[in-house]
Amino acid sequence: MNQDIYYMQQAINLSKKGKYTTPPNPNVGCIIIKNKKIIGVGWHQYAGCEHAEIIALKEAGQEAKGAIMYVTLEPCIHFGLTPPCCKEIIKSKISQVIIGSLDPNPIVSGKGVTILKKHGIQVKIGILNNKIESINKGFFKRMKTGIPYIKLKLGISLDGRIATQTGESKWITSENSRNDVQLFRAQSCAILSSSNTIISDNPYLTVRNKNIKKKNKKDILKNSQPLKIIIDSRNLVQKHHNCIINTGKIILARIKNDNQIWPKNVEQVIFPKSTIYKDKIDIKSIFYYLGKKNINNVWVETGGTLSGILLSNYLIDELIIYIAPILLGENAKPMCILNNITTLSESLKFSIIKIDMINSDIRIIMKPKK
Amino acid sequence: MNQDIYYMQQAINLSKKGKYTTPPNPNVGCIIIKNKKIIGVGWHQYAGCEHAEIIALKEAGQEAKGAIMYVTLEPCIHFGLTPPCCKEIIKSKISQVIIGSLDPNPIVSGKGVTILKKHGIQVKIGILNNKIESINKGFFKRMKTGIPYIKLKLGISLDGRIATQTGESKWITSENSRNDVQLFRAQSCAILSSSNTIISDNPYLTVRNKNIKKKNKKDILKNSQPLKIIIDSRNLVQKHHNCIINTGKIILARIKNDNQIWPKNVEQVIFPKSTIYKDKIDIKSIFYYLGKKNINNVWVETGGTLSGILLSNYLIDELIIYIAPILLGENAKPMCILNNITTLSESLKFSIIKIDMINSDIRIIMKPKK
Repeated sequence: MNQDIYYMQQAINLSKKGKYTTPPNPNVGCIIIKNKKIIGVGWHQYAGCEHAEIIALKEAGQEAKGAIMYVTLEPCIHFGLTPPCCKEIIKSKISQVIIGSLDPNPIVSGKGVTILKKHGIQVKIGILNNKIESINKGFFKRMKTGIPYIKLKLGISLDGRIATQTGESKWITSENSRNDVQLFRAQSCAILSSSNTIISDNPYLTVRNKNIKKKNKKDILKNSQPLKIIIDSRNLVQKHHNCIINTGKIILARIKNDNQIWPKNVEQVIFPKSTIYKDKIDIKSIFYYLGKKNINNVWVETGGTLSGILLSNYLIDELIIYIAPILLGENAKPMCILNNITTLSESLKFSIIKIDMINSDIRIIMKPKK
Repeated sequence: MNQDIYYMQQAINLSKKGKYTTPPNPNVGCIIIKNKKIIGVGWHQYAGCEHAEIIALKEAGQEAKGAIMYVTLEPCIHFGLTPPCCKEIIKSKISQVIIGSLDPNPIVSGKGVTILKKHGIQVKIGILNNKIESINKGFFKRMKTGIPYIKLKLGISLDGRIATQTGESKWITSENSRNDVQLFRAQSCAILSSSNTIISDNPYLTVRNKNIKKKNKKDILKNSQPLKIIIDSRNLVQKHHNCIINTGKIILARIKNDNQIWPKNVEQVIFPKSTIYKDKIDIKSIFYYLGKKNINNVWVETGGTLSGILLSNYLIDELIIYIAPILLGENAKPMCILNNITTLSESLKFSIIKIDMINSDIRIIMKPKK
């Protein structure tokens, strides 16, 4: 195997350790090589912690002089919460930097490379960059478009139903599927739902580390909960709801405020009305708002109406469906309310990325075809 | 590996060669061993052809004396279309017969074993018998219950729909899925559908060997078509329908005959009315009729109404679903009309046997949980 690919893959593996903790920052891994020996490794753990490059350089110490650095993402040039990495790389007298992917932020992309080159460091770009983008989908999308990466999850029966005709939905899918959902929640910066779902299912929408630890014991989990954001255009969510009682920041996305005194963790935020859907909030404005708040990934758990709006308007990046092997019949609640589709050519189409058995259920991960 | 299991597995592999051709007979494979060498092999190809044991004995010739025979199914004792195998085995002076599974027919089960033993042949029974039953499901079920093994196939969207609201259903699933269906049709003794499906989709319901040969070039295919049986309680099927125009025997299952002169390949058969579903035929009586006609396997391709009746009444042995990664929305035609299910505990439940990707679609094979 090509040496660059070999070491970059190791740097990528390191970067993945931060998958639950780095947002709003990306996952970054770094490895420093001298005479075919690894003399320093690092991965980014939390926003505010040292960057991967700095940790690796510290381990390498004086040895860094003349060494090769493999880093998954272009080193930064700006003072954010930590000093710029490029400065430290130059100081260390590293002779070559192999960069997996350029910084996706159009304002700084390529600038790190320019500075390193200006200081006589050899730079190579673009090793396994698709892999790197795919484990930092949210960060890359937000940097390029201002909008987070949106995953919609639905738990359905074989005949595409999310509840019986009387509304019973607990639980269509198995406990293992619900624990699997916890892993996705934990990797998300925000969980989005609707007031309809809060009223009918009263979910907590929290990450229960207990359930995750069983499965992924080695992973480092963040202590904070993802931001919860509830679309509540009719001011239906009340203080007694489980998602409010729980700790963690909650945003109620509304068209107008109510006059109640809410707990400190709850904030009402006003959004413009949709121009398409009567008396509903313009969802895209919520996504831009979340992007501005450094939210990389949004995990959506909701009912047929909001799911349908998101799907019909191509606002979803990934659709994750858990199918329980049961049938609920033609009167049960449909998984998504779509615009009037009359011909097969008008159907919403997806490409399947991955299928897995989760205990007795099937999990299908898909991307919409636009 | 245990020697018996090793050789029985080879006999099973041989038996599978007959999967498209042996009905109404089962798939049987046979292998004769002497001094750890294979001296004869055989598999059953057609009803009326020599049985697997006879073919293997002929290959072994004089060498059969003192040898061990592995045969997947208990050798027969009766003159059917061919002379009884037990007689030939005794004549050959085989010293030991290892039988995978006893004959499932309660009238003859164990009788072959008794005769062989009476003639001083050592007999061992029950090696990989679950595997043998699983590749002869139809034969075993018919022998035990009088009813064929019933597989229901549905091609659906992700949201469990078999057609758009305007009835467009060609094609929800991909060409590869439809070719895959051809393989199942070819392995079936009969294809069952309903007049509703004939009216709305006008299918041919034939095995198109052309499409199969592409995929399974090595398989021996039968030239005859599976029996087609259309449930037509309201005498709606007409001579111009594609399933009638095509060659191959067709049964119109009706409550009363019409006065038309039908082509020679079409037979109207009268069945009793259902005591549950008004003006419908009692489906179980159709299955008993087919069992009597030596039909081992029935492949059902139909719409939501008949599918719902079969599923609700636990008349299905296997459910095969092809899911196309598309959404058709809440007004599209549901995959099955079920009895009124209001709670999750009333849902129809299945266990998943196998999941495969068929090009862009997902194929799920399930068994109902009763």
